[in-house]
Amino acid sequence: MLTMQDALITLTRYWTGHGCMIVQPMNTEVGAGTLNPATALRVLGPEPWRVAYAEPSVRPDDSRYGDNPNRLQTHTQFQVILKPEPGDPQELYLGSLSALGIDVCAHDVRFVEDNWASPALGAWGLGWEVWLDGLEITQFTYFQQSGGMTLDPVSVEITYGMERIIMALQGVSHFEDIAYAPGISYGEAFGQAEYEMSRYYLDEADIAANRALFDTYAAEAGRLIDARLPVPAHACVLKCSQAFNVLDARGAISTTERAQAFTRMRNLAHGVAELWAQRRAELGYPLGTATASPSAPEEVTAPMPSLDAPADLAFEIGVEELPPAEVTRAAEAIRASLVERLAATRLRHGDITVLSAPRRIAAIVAGVQPCEDDEEQAIRGPRLSAAYDADGNPTNAALGFARGQGIDVTGLRPLTFNGGTYTGFIKHVPGRPAAQVLAAVLPAVVADLRAERNMRWNAPGLSYSRPIRWVLALLGPHPVPFTIAGIASGRLTWVHRTAPEPAITVTDAAGYLPALRAHKIEPDASVRRSRILTEAAELALTAGGQIDPESEHAVIDEVTNLVEDPVAILGSFDTSYLDLPADILTTVMKKHQRYLPLRAASGELLPHFITIANGECDHDLVRAGNEAVLRARYEDAAFFWRAELARPLDEMKSRLAQLTFETQLGSVADRASRIAALAAALADRVGLPDDERAVLRPAAELAKFDLGSAMVTELPSLAGVMAREYARHAGQPAAVAEALFEAELPRHARDTLPRSRPGAILALADRLDLLTGLFAIGAEPTGSSDPFGLRRAALGLLAILRTHPGLSQLAITEGLAIAAALQPVPAGGQLPEDVLDFVGRRFDQLMLDQGHPAASIRAVRPLVDTPARAEQTLQQLAGLLRTPEGQELAAAIQRVRRILPAVTSLSFDPTLFDSPAEHALQAALDKISEATGPDTDLRHFAAAASALTGPINDFFDQVLVMADDPAVKANRLGLLASVYHLAERYLDWGQLP
Amino acid sequence: MLTMQDALITLTRYWTGHGCMIVQPMNTEVGAGTLNPATALRVLGPEPWRVAYAEPSVRPDDSRYGDNPNRLQTHTQFQVILKPEPGDPQELYLGSLSALGIDVCAHDVRFVEDNWASPALGAWGLGWEVWLDGLEITQFTYFQQSGGMTLDPVSVEITYGMERIIMALQGVSHFEDIAYAPGISYGEAFGQAEYEMSRYYLDEADIAANRALFDTYAAEAGRLIDARLPVPAHACVLKCSQAFNVLDARGAISTTERAQAFTRMRNLAHGVAELWAQRRAELGYPLGTATASPSAPEEVTAPMPSLDAPADLAFEIGVEELPPAEVTRAAEAIRASLVERLAATRLRHGDITVLSAPRRIAAIVAGVQPCEDDEEQAIRGPRLSAAYDADGNPTNAALGFARGQGIDVTGLRPLTFNGGTYTGFIKHVPGRPAAQVLAAVLPAVVADLRAERNMRWNAPGLSYSRPIRWVLALLGPHPVPFTIAGIASGRLTWVHRTAPEPAITVTDAAGYLPALRAHKIEPDASVRRSRILTEAAELALTAGGQIDPESEHAVIDEVTNLVEDPVAILGSFDTSYLDLPADILTTVMKKHQRYLPLRAASGELLPHFITIANGECDHDLVRAGNEAVLRARYEDAAFFWRAELARPLDEMKSRLAQLTFETQLGSVADRASRIAALAAALADRVGLPDDERAVLRPAAELAKFDLGSAMVTELPSLAGVMAREYARHAGQPAAVAEALFEAELPRHARDTLPRSRPGAILALADRLDLLTGLFAIGAEPTGSSDPFGLRRAALGLLAILRTHPGLSQLAITEGLAIAAALQPVPAGGQLPEDVLDFVGRRFDQLMLDQGHPAASIRAVRPLVDTPARAEQTLQQLAGLLRTPEGQELAAAIQRVRRILPAVTSLSFDPTLFDSPAEHALQAALDKISEATGPDTDLRHFAAAASALTGPINDFFDQVLVMADDPAVKANRLGLLASVYHLAERYLDWGQLP
Repeated sequence: MLTMQDALITLTRYWTGHGCMIVQPMNTEVGAGTLNPATALRVLGPEPWRVAYAEPSVRPDDSRYGDNPNRLQTHTQFQVILKPEPGDPQELYLGSLSALGIDVCAHDVRFVEDNWASPALGAWGLGWEVWLDGLEITQFTYFQQSGGMTLDPVSVEITYGMERIIMALQGVSHFEDIAYAPGISYGEAFGQAEYEMSRYYLDEADIAANRALFDTYAAEAGRLIDARLPVPAHACVLKCSQAFNVLDARGAISTTERAQAFTRMRNLAHGVAELWAQRRAELGYPLGTATASPSAPEEVTAPMPSLDAPADLAFEIGVEELPPAEVTRAAEAIRASLVERLAATRLRHGDITVLSAPRRIAAIVAGVQPCEDDEEQAIRGPRLSAAYDADGNPTNAALGFARGQGIDVTGLRPLTFNGGTYTGFIKHVPGRPAAQVLAAVLPAVVADLRAERNMRWNAPGLSYSRPIRWVLALLGPHPVPFTIAGIASGRLTWVHRTAPEPAITVTDAAGYLPALRAHKIEPDASVRRSRILTEAAELALTAGGQIDPESEHAVIDEVTNLVEDPVAILGSFDTSYLDLPADILTTVMKKHQRYLPLRAASGELLPHFITIANGECDHDLVRAGNEAVLRARYEDAAFFWRAELARPLDEMKSRLAQLTFETQLGSVADRASRIAALAAALADRVGLPDDERAVLRPAAELAKFDLGSAMVTELPSLAGVMAREYARHAGQPAAVAEALFEAELPRHARDTLPRSRPGAILALADRLDLLTGLFAIGAEPTGSSDPFGLRRAALGLLAILRTHPGLSQLAITEGLAIAAALQPVPAGGQLPEDVLDFVGRRFDQLMLDQGHPAASIRAVRPLVDTPARAEQTLQQLAGLLRTPEGQELAAAIQRVRRILPAVTSLSFDPTLFDSPAEHALQAALDKISEATGPDTDLRHFAAAASALTGPINDFFDQVLVMADDPAVKANRLGLLASVYHLAERYLDWGQLP
Repeated sequence: MLTMQDALITLTRYWTGHGCMIVQPMNTEVGAGTLNPATALRVLGPEPWRVAYAEPSVRPDDSRYGDNPNRLQTHTQFQVILKPEPGDPQELYLGSLSALGIDVCAHDVRFVEDNWASPALGAWGLGWEVWLDGLEITQFTYFQQSGGMTLDPVSVEITYGMERIIMALQGVSHFEDIAYAPGISYGEAFGQAEYEMSRYYLDEADIAANRALFDTYAAEAGRLIDARLPVPAHACVLKCSQAFNVLDARGAISTTERAQAFTRMRNLAHGVAELWAQRRAELGYPLGTATASPSAPEEVTAPMPSLDAPADLAFEIGVEELPPAEVTRAAEAIRASLVERLAATRLRHGDITVLSAPRRIAAIVAGVQPCEDDEEQAIRGPRLSAAYDADGNPTNAALGFARGQGIDVTGLRPLTFNGGTYTGFIKHVPGRPAAQVLAAVLPAVVADLRAERNMRWNAPGLSYSRPIRWVLALLGPHPVPFTIAGIASGRLTWVHRTAPEPAITVTDAAGYLPALRAHKIEPDASVRRSRILTEAAELALTAGGQIDPESEHAVIDEVTNLVEDPVAILGSFDTSYLDLPADILTTVMKKHQRYLPLRAASGELLPHFITIANGECDHDLVRAGNEAVLRARYEDAAFFWRAELARPLDEMKSRLAQLTFETQLGSVADRASRIAALAAALADRVGLPDDERAVLRPAAELAKFDLGSAMVTELPSLAGVMAREYARHAGQPAAVAEALFEAELPRHARDTLPRSRPGAILALADRLDLLTGLFAIGAEPTGSSDPFGLRRAALGLLAILRTHPGLSQLAITEGLAIAAALQPVPAGGQLPEDVLDFVGRRFDQLMLDQGHPAASIRAVRPLVDTPARAEQTLQQLAGLLRTPEGQELAAAIQRVRRILPAVTSLSFDPTLFDSPAEHALQAALDKISEATGPDTDLRHFAAAASALTGPINDFFDQVLVMADDPAVKANRLGLLASVYHLAERYLDWGQLP
C-alpha cells in the first residue's frame, strides 16, 4: 500500500525529475502553500522558478477536534510552481498521478473549472480543480496576479490535497485511518495534535493576546516594508494573518474589524510584493529572466496551397479544458468572428458550422472558393495640374508615380477623387488564393477569442479563458499555414490525453469530424447532450427510476460541456441517507458533484445517481470512487444535519452578526433586521390581514437565520431550504417555515415563486434591500460583473410583483423609498429612479424574450413601477393592435401626440371653438372621461376611446390647429392636450410605430 | 555532483528504509530540530518512535548578512530519532553516509566526545560530534533527559548539519556556492533571505514588539498548560523562545532579564513535558510501549568449561567511543574492580594487565587457577541443649537439621559459635571451577563501570559513559559464559567498523592481543601514544619542523584516546595565515581540531599541522579535507581579527554588560568591576609603588574586555591572549597589555604564571572574586562537577601566592574579606574559612604530589593562609627531619604536645619549681624566646630551639608533671604550654608521626 509518506517522497522525486527544486515548508503557520515565499514572492517578476514542497496548511476555522472524517485544522498540501508555465503542465501533472500509481486510463480524471482568488492578498488565477472519480484531489491554477501585481510570466500552480488523495487511494473513510508510514496511522501520528490544536483554535486561544499579536505583526511588517526588507516583512504578514485566522475561528471578529483587518493585510501584502519585485530588479534578477516563449517554432515557411475547386475548411482551436459556459459561448464567438472577418475579404464560401467541446472550438466552412473575387481599384496619382507641364508632357511627379506603380506613364489618365482631379489608373486586383486569405483571417479569429474571464499564459498577445495549445486548419487536404503566438497551425489534433496516441493527423477537412469521432471525441454539444440523456435514461431504467431532463437541465448542460465523450455510470448510496431532506441530497449531487439524481415515478428520490465520465474507463473503479466521494459528502451533511437539529434557531441567528454582508452595509444580521423592518412596512402598505401578519412577524424575526448554520455555509444554495427544515423541526408553524423558504425564491430564472403573501413580502423586502444598499454604495453591476446578483434580484422582484395577485398594486419606488430609509448609508436623491431604471431594463428584456415588439415595450415602460400593470397593459396593447379599430385609435392618438409641443396647457375654452369638429371632439372627450377612471385598463379605455378615432380625424381634417390667432391656436392645442392626457395614463403612445 | 536537495532526499529514503516516518519541519521558528515536537515531546514516555525530518534551524545570533562563509541565521538540520536506541545506531548512521556516497573507508570518520545540554529546556544527552576528515558533520546523542524528565527508553538523536556536509562533499568554501539543486546555487535560492533576515535579527527587529511577543506567548503557554493542552503549549514555548532569541541577537537582553526569561522558559518546558507524558498515559500509550531490550538473547545455557591447568583470562568490554579522559579512567577502574571482586573469591591468579582504547576496555589476567581453593566451613545447628534429649538421643530439631544439610545425624558434633554451644559440623566446601567464578565476577565488573558522566541506553541496569555493546571473555580457549543486560559474553570482538569483517572471533585468551593487532587495533594507550610521537616526529621532519611533546602533551594525550589505530597525516595551510597571532592558530589547531602544530627549530610556527587519523584511509583525501576545515576556521578567525582590530576596546568592554556571568552574581561587566576594585585594594595592601599602579589602573579598567570580542566568544581559551593582542594594537602600553594577559594566568596546571605584579594582582583578584562569589551562592564544587572551575581557580591562587615574591605576604583570608564585601550577595560568616579550607585541600594535594609526607603537610596546614610560608615551612621541615637533631627536637616538642590537655594556661610560677630540670627548661625557653620573633622561619627557630631538646627530655625524665598537688601540676603544665606555644607558631607538631 502506498503510504502518505511514500506519496510525498514519490511526488518529490517526480518533480525534481522535472526540474523543480525542493524547499522546506514555511516555518511559520500558513493557510496554504501559496503563502510560502517560494510561491508568493517567487511568482513575481521575470525570473524563472520551478519549485515543489510539502506545506502543512493551517486553517483554524476547519478545526473539528479530529471528529470530522475529512476536515482538519492542518492538512498537507504538496505544492508545485512552474514558472513560466511550460506549455504542457496538464500532461506533466497527469504524469505525477501515474507516478503515484494511479492508472489515469482506468480512472475518470477531469479538469473542472475552478478559479482562485484571494482579494485579501490581491491574488487570483484561473484553472481547475482536478477530479479523480468525482473527488477533488488537486487545485491547478494559472496564477495571474499576486500581491496586486500582474504576473509576467505566468506561473502554473499545482496544489495536491494529500490527505484526500491518500484517503481515496487507500480506500479509507476517515483521515485518522490513513496509513501514514509503515506501521503508523495518520491518527496515531497527528491525532492528538489535531485534537489539541482544534481545542486551541476553537475554545482556548486568548482573544486579547491574539489581537495584540495581530497588531504587533502588522506593525512590524509595515516597518520592514519601510526598511525595504520584503522577506522578513512577508513573514510578519503571515503571522499577522495567522493571528487573524485564530481570532476568526474563535468568533471574535466583528464586521468592522474584519473589514479593517483585510484592508490592512491587503495593503501590507501589496507593499511586500512591490518591494520584492523592486529588490529583485535592483539585484539584477539573479536567476535571469524567463524567455517569453521558450519553444517558439520557426516562422512558417510552408508553401501556400492553391486549389482548383471549392473546398471545405476545417478549423479547430485546441484549448485546455474550458469552463462549461465558455464552451457554449466559444462556438458562437468563433462563428461571429469568422463571418465578420471573411466578409471583409472577397472570399466566398458556403455555410459555417461551429462545434465546441471542452478542449476544442471548431468551425467547418463549406465550399470555400479557390480564390477571392478579383477587384478593380482606382489608384490615385499626383494632381492632374501637377502631372503634366504646360506642354502636356508628364512631370517628374507623374513619371515617378508611374515608375513606383510599375506601369508606363502613358497608362495614366485623369480620375476624380473626393471632388479633386488627379492622375491615376484603374488597377485590376486579382483575388488572393483562399489559403492566403485564410492564413490571415484564421489567426485573427484565434486572437479574437475572449471569455467572461480571461487569462494570460506563455503566449504573448493572447488572452483567453484557458490556454490555447494547438490550431488545426485544413483547406481540403491542405494545411493553411500560419503561426500565432508561437503556435504553428497544422493538421494535428489532440484526442483523449489517455489515448495511446494523444495527437492524431487529419488528412483533409472532410475527414476532420470522422477522425475525431473515430477517436471517441464528440465535438458537437447537442450530440453529447442527447447521448447523455439517452444513456442516463437507459441506466436510470435499470435502477427503476428516471431522470427529469427539465428540472435537471442545468446540470445536464454543464456536464455536456465538461466531457468530450460522455459515458454514463450508475452509482448508488446507502438508503439511510434518504432520511436527510431531499434538497440536501440533490444539492450535493448536482452542485458539488454534477451527478444526475434518480427519482421514482412518484417523484421520490432513489438511492442512486448517474455520473458522466469523460471517455471510457473502468466503470467499477469509477463508480466506487464516486460512491465514496458522495458517501463522505453525505456523511458530512448528516453530521451537520444531526448537530444542527439540536441547535436553537436563535443561536444560529446570532451567528449572523459575525458574517460580513458588505463592509459599508454591515453584517448579515444588520441586513436581516432591515429585511424584517421593510417587510413590516410593506405589510402595512398592502394592508396584510392579521392572520398573515401572524405568519410574517415570526418569519421576519428569523430572517436569514440559516445562513448561520454550518449546512448553508457548506452548501449556500440550500439557503431557505434549510431555514424551512430547521424551522419545522424546531416547532415553528408550517406557514412560518414555508415563508422562510419562500423568502429566498426565486433563486434562479426557472425557479418557483413564493405562494404565500408573507413569503412573497419577505422575498420582496430581501431584494429591495439588496438593490437599494448596493446602489447606494455604488456597487451596481458593470459589464458582466455582478457579484451580488443584482440582476437576479431585479428579476425576482419583477417575477413576484408580476405574478402575485395580492401584491400587484405595490409600486417598486414605494418599496425602494422604505428600503432607502433603512440603509446605514445615504440612499436618497436619484437612487430610487436609478434602481427603477435598472429593474425596468430587466423588464424590457423579459418582455422581449416573450416576443413583444420593442416599441410596445417602450410604450408601457412608464408603468413599470407596478410591473403587473405594465405587463397587463402590454398584453392588452398587443390585442388592441391586432384590430383595425385599435390600430386606428392608436394612429389617431399618435397624431394628437405628434402635434403637441413639449409644454402645452390642458385648458381650453369651448366658446372659442369655431367648427363643429371641435365641439364633436370635446363631446367625445367628455363622454370617455366619464366612462373611464383610475382603475380602467387599456382594454376598457380603448373600448371607450374607439369613439374618439372619428372625432380626432375629423378635427385634423377640418380644423387648422396652428391658427394665426395665438389664442385660437392655444385653445385648440389645449383641447388636443386634454385628449392626450386622458390617453397617456395607459401608454406612452409616442413610442408606438 | 550530489546536490543538497539530492542529499536530503537520499537521507529521507535511507531512514524511511530503516523504519523512520517522515514529518514536516515545525511550522514555527525553532533553533534546532530537537525542538520540533516530533523530537521534544515524542522522546518522552515509553512509546516507541522513529522519525526523520529536515528542519530549518533559526539562530538569530548567527546572523552574518550572508557574509560569513560558514555561518547562517538559518541552516538546515536533518534530524533522526530512534526510540528506543536500536543497539547499532552508529552502524546505521555510517550506512547513511555511504548512502550519501561518502566512502567511509577512504575518509577518516571519527566519533569525538561531545555532550549536549540545554539547561533552559532541562534537556541533556551524551554522545559525539561526528568528524569527517576533521569536519564536524553530525551531532550524535543518546538523549537522557528532556523537559526535566528522565527518558526511558533512551532515544538516539542524529542531527546532520546539511550545509557543512554538502560544502565538504562539493568542495566549496562558501555556503552560497553550494549546488542546491540542478542549476541553482544555495545563494541564488536563499541568499536574499539570509541577508534580509540577518538585517531583521541584528538591526531592525523592534525590541518592544519582541518583548511583547515574548510575554504574550509565555502567558499563552502557561494558560494552555493549565488547560492541559501540551501541543499548542509547546508551540507557544517555541514562539516565546524565538522572541527571546531575536531580542538576544539585538543585544536587548540584560542580565536580569536573561535569568528571568530562562527560568520562565524552563518552567514552561517542564510543564509541557510533564503534561505530555501524563496525557499519553491517559490516552493509554496509543503507540504501545517499547520493550526494554527488543533483542535480548536467551539466557546463556552454554556449559561451564573446566580447566586442568592455570590459564590466562582475556576479558574485553566493547563500548562505543569513550571520551578520551574516560579511556584512561576505564583502565584503572576495571583493574580496581577486578582486583577487589576476585579478592572476594578464593580464585588465585597472576598479574592483571589492563588496556584501553576508545572502543574497548580490556584486562588480561595471567595464570588463573583452574579452581578456587577449597574451604572448611563450620555449619551451626540447634543449640546443644536442644539437640539431644535426656537420653542423649537426637531430638527432632537435630534430626531435621541433619536431614536439611544432607548428612547423617551422627555426623553432628558440639561446636562453639559466639560463645554459645551448638551442634554442628565442619563442611568441606570445594572451590568452584574458575569459569563459574568468573561468570559471576565478570558481569559484576561490567556493571561496576562508572564514568564522570554516565548515561543509560537500551540495557537496563547498566549506566556508563557510553553504551556497552559486547563482552569478550575467554579463559584459555574457553568462553566464560554469562549475560549482562541482554549482552551475552563470547569470543567475538569488533575491530574497525570499516573493516571487511568488523567482528572477528578470538580462539583463545593468548590470541586476544595478537588478533586485535592483526586487525590494526592497538588497545595499549602507551603504544598508541609512542607511535603517534614517532610518526609525527618523522612527518614533521619532512616539513622541516618538529613537534614539542611537552607543550603539546594535552592534545597528544587526547588524540591517543581518540583513535584505536593512529595514522599521522601531514597537512598544510596558507602561509598568509601566519600573520595572525600564533596563539590563535595553535588554539584552533589544538582545541578545535586536535592537530599537532609544527614549529621550526627557532620555535617559529610553520604552516603545517599533523592530524592523527583512526586507521588506514586515503591520505590525500583526508589531508585535503582537514586542510579545508582548517582553512575555513582560519578564514573565520582572520575575519574576526581584522574586524576587531578596528573596534575600540571600550566598545568590546561595553558588551560585557550583556553577558551573564551568573544569575545572582550579575553580568561579566559586574564581575570585571569587582575585579578592578579588588585589585586596587590588594595593591594598597601590598603597598604597590606608583609605577606599578600606573600599569594596574588602566589594566583593571579594561579587565576581561576581550570576553566581549567575537574571537574569544569563538575561542574562549584565547581569553587574555586576545586581550594582550587587542590592547597592544590599540596602543596601550606594553605593560598594560601584558598585565591583561597575565590576569588570566595560570589557565591550567602546567601554565606559566604572571610575572608582573600588576598582572599577578589582577589574576589574584579574579580568582578571589570567583571563589567568594560562587561559595556565597552555594555553588562550591561537589563530586566531579566543577562547572565554574573553582578547583583550577584555587590552584591558580596558590600558584601565584607561592611563587610571586612581591605577594607572598598576602593572606588569602584578607583577600577573601575584601572580595566578600564587593559581592552583590551576602558573603560573610563562615565563608572565608570554608574557602580557605577548600584552597587548603588543593594545597595538600599539590604538596603530596611533590612528595611531601602527608603528616608534614598536615603539620604546616595552619599556615596555608599564606601559602608561600606554608610551603617554605614544609621544605624546611623536610630538612629538619633529615637531621638527628631535628628529629630529636621534633620528638621532644611532640612529647610536650602530647601531655598538654586541650586547655592549658600559659602561666607558670618559677617559685613553685622544685627541680633543676624545671629551671633549666625555663632558662632555655627564655633564651629561645629572645632569639626568635614573628619573622623567624622554621629553620631559624629549629636552629635556636635545638637547645630545648635536652632540657625537655631532662624535664620529662626528672619531673612528674602530673603531680598530686594540683597547683604544682598546673604550674608544670603552664611551663610546658609556654614551650609549645613558642613552637606552634611554626607547625602543628602534633601532626608529625
